[in-house]
Amino acid sequence: MQILPIHEQMRIIAKGAAEIINPEELQRKLHDAAGKGRPLTVKLGLDPTAPDLHLGHAVVLRKIRQMQELGHRAVIILGDFTAMIGDPSGKSKTRKQLTHEETLRNAATYKEQLFRILMPERTEIRFNSEWLSGLNLAAVLELAGKTTVARILERDDFKSRFSANLTIGLHELFYPLMQSYDSVAIQADIEMGGTDQRFNILMGRDIQKHYGQESQVALFMPILEGTDGVEKMSKSLGNSIGINEDPRVMFEKIMAIPDSLIIRYFELCTDLHPDEVDLYRERLDNGENPRDIKACLAHEIVRLYHGR
Amino acid sequence: MQILPIHEQMRIIAKGAAEIINPEELQRKLHDAAGKGRPLTVKLGLDPTAPDLHLGHAVVLRKIRQMQELGHRAVIILGDFTAMIGDPSGKSKTRKQLTHEETLRNAATYKEQLFRILMPERTEIRFNSEWLSGLNLAAVLELAGKTTVARILERDDFKSRFSANLTIGLHELFYPLMQSYDSVAIQADIEMGGTDQRFNILMGRDIQKHYGQESQVALFMPILEGTDGVEKMSKSLGNSIGINEDPRVMFEKIMAIPDSLIIRYFELCTDLHPDEVDLYRERLDNGENPRDIKACLAHEIVRLYHGR
Repeated sequence: MQILPIHEQMRIIAKGAAEIINPEELQRKLHDAAGKGRPLTVKLGLDPTAPDLHLGHAVVLRKIRQMQELGHRAVIILGDFTAMIGDPSGKSKTRKQLTHEETLRNAATYKEQLFRILMPERTEIRFNSEWLSGLNLAAVLELAGKTTVARILERDDFKSRFSANLTIGLHELFYPLMQSYDSVAIQADIEMGGTDQRFNILMGRDIQKHYGQESQVALFMPILEGTDGVEKMSKSLGNSIGINEDPRVMFEKIMAIPDSLIIRYFELCTDLHPDEVDLYRERLDNGENPRDIKACLAHEIVRLYHGR
Repeated sequence: MQILPIHEQMRIIAKGAAEIINPEELQRKLHDAAGKGRPLTVKLGLDPTAPDLHLGHAVVLRKIRQMQELGHRAVIILGDFTAMIGDPSGKSKTRKQLTHEETLRNAATYKEQLFRILMPERTEIRFNSEWLSGLNLAAVLELAGKTTVARILERDDFKSRFSANLTIGLHELFYPLMQSYDSVAIQADIEMGGTDQRFNILMGRDIQKHYGQESQVALFMPILEGTDGVEKMSKSLGNSIGINEDPRVMFEKIMAIPDSLIIRYFELCTDLHPDEVDLYRERLDNGENPRDIKACLAHEIVRLYHGR
């Protein structure tokens, strides 16, 4: 494996990232990895549903791909455990019925889509039931004892529900802990996520330390705006660009985004090197017609999903 | 088994009780039990430590004995699970080392003392590790999903620590649930406890219902004052009367209690029928020398622990 200089790896990883907690630790991990010839383990946790992935979902996946190109390995964790146990309050009987077979079927569909972005040979897909279903009460209490009620209730949604006297089932407090335990189970070096995952991923850092591991680096990617340039990309809002869409449709949709998003899309939706993105930025600054730059962007993205 | 009329059983059970939640349910349970010739299951949970039992501890045990005399059965639950896992925060390493062997040894000592009050043939001693150690995460989440964060934080000690910003480990919220699950495991009809157990025992009622069982009746006994007549009986306060004490010492100590406690001691420390207690009450009211009545009390208690 050819190893890029650390500062160069840092630039590629930081491109478009919303926040890295923290860059010094990332640098040290990259350094250690290079020294030992051991790739870093990049974790991403996903629900085992099978959505039609769009460029919004792809922001995090593309970043992982870029790290795979740098020689690192991805571990995608499908949260089948939660899907199988369903809503423990017993209110959602339907969800409870999601069988192991259905979960596996969903996972297969998901995998097919993931591998349009990730490198299969540097990707491992794991189900978290593998380690969660076997935890017994003693282990659960040990895990729970590593955090406090106050700390958990700091999470934005819990906090607001708690102060509004809305019901929080005691089991719900366990979800951040389970996600954190996933990090322990696979000894994650980096956990990826949208900025909405801030609390859970930072908790993972704490919990790993309690289990005698080095804390993972938290790498947060921003939420991508849809083609309207305002709202978060979402199929239901009609502003999304699916990764499975026909190349011509995809091209047209990209040509329709506001000019103000061109550089952001270069950063978040392509694997271009930061230097290349800078060149496009300069061309725009120098008064070149944004339409032409946008066409380059559209070509680049279509190429990613529909081959060269 | 000779079955006393329900109202008579109710009188005996209610003698000296601080609170019964609720009497109508207890009456119905007694009625059903009589109808089916099936004794009620009276639960008491205890830490698997081996204290020198004194009359204060004996208040609850004597009430159980009275119910055994009525034909019902006791299930004493020794909380070995907690003792074995220790403090899950890992702060108390010492407690964590309590081995299964030590727990069993403690339990043996305990048993010997319990059987100075309870009827062995109507007493079952169970360790809660039997059902708790086997619970897996899915079962734990199911259990946790049956209560809410707000509800748990209503417990007095949690509430005050929470508002004072004192640390509450997330695992601590599980203790009331584990105690409640014990009730489910043995299908308790009645749970006994001091008034300090109010929260945990009432939660057991809820949790049983969630598991499709009839709720247990909560039977709270008051906290017994020591020989000083003021403070809670406690060995460390020097105001206690041990059940293993020499009969003469025991007699002397009882003779030293304030006259105002005579009837209370009759109610809480003897198995006398309510009618007999009423007779003593009348004698006192009629101006008989309290010293003579106290001597009857002392004889009665000494007889309980040192045979006739």
